[in-house]
Amino acid sequence: MIKKFLMTPGPTQIPPQVLLAMARPIIHHRTGEYSQLFARVNDNLKYVFQTKNEVLSFASSGTGGMESAVANLCSPGDRVLVAAAGKFGERWRDLAAAYGLDCRYLEYDYGRLVDPDDISRSLEADPGIKAVFVTHSETSTGVVNDMKAIGAAVAGNAAVLVCDSISGMGSAEIRTDAWGVDVVVAGSQKALMIPPGMAFVSVSSKAWALAEQSTSPKFYFDWLKARKGLSQPQPTTAFTPAVSLVVGLDAALSLIREEGLENLFARHIILGRACRAAIKALGLELFSPDDDRSSSVTAIRIPDGIEDGKLRGLTRDKFGVQLAGGQGPVKGKIFRIGHCGYYNYTDIIVAITALELALKELGQPVELGSGIGAAEKVFAESLA
Amino acid sequence: MIKKFLMTPGPTQIPPQVLLAMARPIIHHRTGEYSQLFARVNDNLKYVFQTKNEVLSFASSGTGGMESAVANLCSPGDRVLVAAAGKFGERWRDLAAAYGLDCRYLEYDYGRLVDPDDISRSLEADPGIKAVFVTHSETSTGVVNDMKAIGAAVAGNAAVLVCDSISGMGSAEIRTDAWGVDVVVAGSQKALMIPPGMAFVSVSSKAWALAEQSTSPKFYFDWLKARKGLSQPQPTTAFTPAVSLVVGLDAALSLIREEGLENLFARHIILGRACRAAIKALGLELFSPDDDRSSSVTAIRIPDGIEDGKLRGLTRDKFGVQLAGGQGPVKGKIFRIGHCGYYNYTDIIVAITALELALKELGQPVELGSGIGAAEKVFAESLA
Repeated sequence: MIKKFLMTPGPTQIPPQVLLAMARPIIHHRTGEYSQLFARVNDNLKYVFQTKNEVLSFASSGTGGMESAVANLCSPGDRVLVAAAGKFGERWRDLAAAYGLDCRYLEYDYGRLVDPDDISRSLEADPGIKAVFVTHSETSTGVVNDMKAIGAAVAGNAAVLVCDSISGMGSAEIRTDAWGVDVVVAGSQKALMIPPGMAFVSVSSKAWALAEQSTSPKFYFDWLKARKGLSQPQPTTAFTPAVSLVVGLDAALSLIREEGLENLFARHIILGRACRAAIKALGLELFSPDDDRSSSVTAIRIPDGIEDGKLRGLTRDKFGVQLAGGQGPVKGKIFRIGHCGYYNYTDIIVAITALELALKELGQPVELGSGIGAAEKVFAESLA
Repeated sequence: MIKKFLMTPGPTQIPPQVLLAMARPIIHHRTGEYSQLFARVNDNLKYVFQTKNEVLSFASSGTGGMESAVANLCSPGDRVLVAAAGKFGERWRDLAAAYGLDCRYLEYDYGRLVDPDDISRSLEADPGIKAVFVTHSETSTGVVNDMKAIGAAVAGNAAVLVCDSISGMGSAEIRTDAWGVDVVVAGSQKALMIPPGMAFVSVSSKAWALAEQSTSPKFYFDWLKARKGLSQPQPTTAFTPAVSLVVGLDAALSLIREEGLENLFARHIILGRACRAAIKALGLELFSPDDDRSSSVTAIRIPDGIEDGKLRGLTRDKFGVQLAGGQGPVKGKIFRIGHCGYYNYTDIIVAITALELALKELGQPVELGSGIGAAEKVFAESLA
């Protein structure tokens, strides 16, 4: 008998309360019953986003939310700045290219942080830049950028700041309003604890002003259409929403409100810390920074002589733990443990145990239990 | 105690087998397990679409699938033809406008069918037309257009034929290949019996040739990216799929294969016929045609002196049956009974009963049971 543990940074484990809520008979989306639920979901999204801005929702993956930002804020030929240090940062560049934007590109190696000073300098050198696109939690590397510092770097400039927090929202803190992030994109299948299929986008008044001028083609992801839906007496979406996911989200957001943001972020910090302590105790090398901000995903270099496919195949097929591989240039060189969302200390213990057993089986000199001991120490301290 | 019956043309009732499948712990989408499931789903989609073409899938509502057709087939300034007789036909026109196309527009009153001869004449008059956009099942009116005749009208022309069959696919037959429909768009939340949140698009080789030349901006809905995902050794989607919905779809498509397309379409024809017989027996006036092709939605004129909100409020709140209202210019003038998907004779009986009781309560001179008698007669004949 194999019990399965999904330890990937999206999809993530789904609380049973959420699975059960989604299994109820479906309701119609143009009814008072749905509007009430949707209004509550929107309020709770604002709570998690730490914003007073409207949060738009789309039936799409997170990438659809990112595309909506590019298509609604910009017009063909607009100058924008993208700062990327991984696969999802690169997606902003690819989106800018798809929409015919004139893109300045700050590129960092996978595993590095974006330097806010570089953004300041770029904006100073080119005041015509209309929007800055960055990644909060870079899922491909486990790096979480310093959005407070990036917000400060962009503040006072004409440009709007747009941030992909798809794997950050709800696990690595982002204070949308306090840090001056004009547009924040989140996804459903990470720390918001529901299946993939929804994207969320908060929009500041500065960003709305751009959206009202944009000439890029758009329809399904049109923010103005979405805002019109939200402003109805019975708030709704422009197009048929992913009703069952919204029902699940309502249940998931209730859990988040119950826990409270402070506890939520503290829990994720401890999960990341325990994970990193275990990795180091096992003599492995961290790829993501040894930094409490990296609370969504821990990335680890694959030791010399160990094959990615064999390692993750073993943890999955023999020990029941699904880990994530590397992406782009670090494919085959790193693996990743996702711990954003419905995760607590038991999941880290199980994941590290599977890793210890798999490494041992592959001939890596690990002392069984040493990673677990280090993780337990972190958990013990956090409860002291 | 009120038992609730959703009788709307999307969302539609969801089989318990599908709800339970979606309530299972989620799996990761970059695994062999998921690829196997996805490959099976794709095969079964081709079966329902009656096509050998690839069927692309997107995490979005049906409108996203429609937008993908416009964005992938056309480039700014392209001449296209839209034939519309209802709200969803108008959506093609609005999409064409959003993408800067030069749109010829054949407009018919709500409730009318598109005339294939008008399409022939338009194409003859203007051989530069690149694509013809039509609606198969016009959800807003209950009209199902004659796609075989429309296919024949477009055949032999340079233009590709694009069809929104969102509320048709799986209830009103469309023979994609045999009738020469280059692109067919379907949605998840109608006769495919899962919640909203997925769109499906079949693409012919003639349409692929256009897609390879299109210069319209697109990313999330890019067909070439989707095709690349499907052609991997382990077929996948370009972006994170709506995993739980795909799992549900797998269960729903199994049910469809078990029933078989012939039985499936026959069942829907009987549902429509019974519904229309009941409506006529009650002395109400049909808005949708009294035609066996109208097997997805039955639209009915609201009798003089009866208020839409009161009528549908009563059926919903007192008798548990959610009906749909009118849209656009027929809002408040018609109501609609959806019967595409997981519906059988019991649902029609319940819906008509609620309607009889509500009409009676509102002072309409109906003979209780007369609609039911007429519906039962249709069912009895169909079983004879």
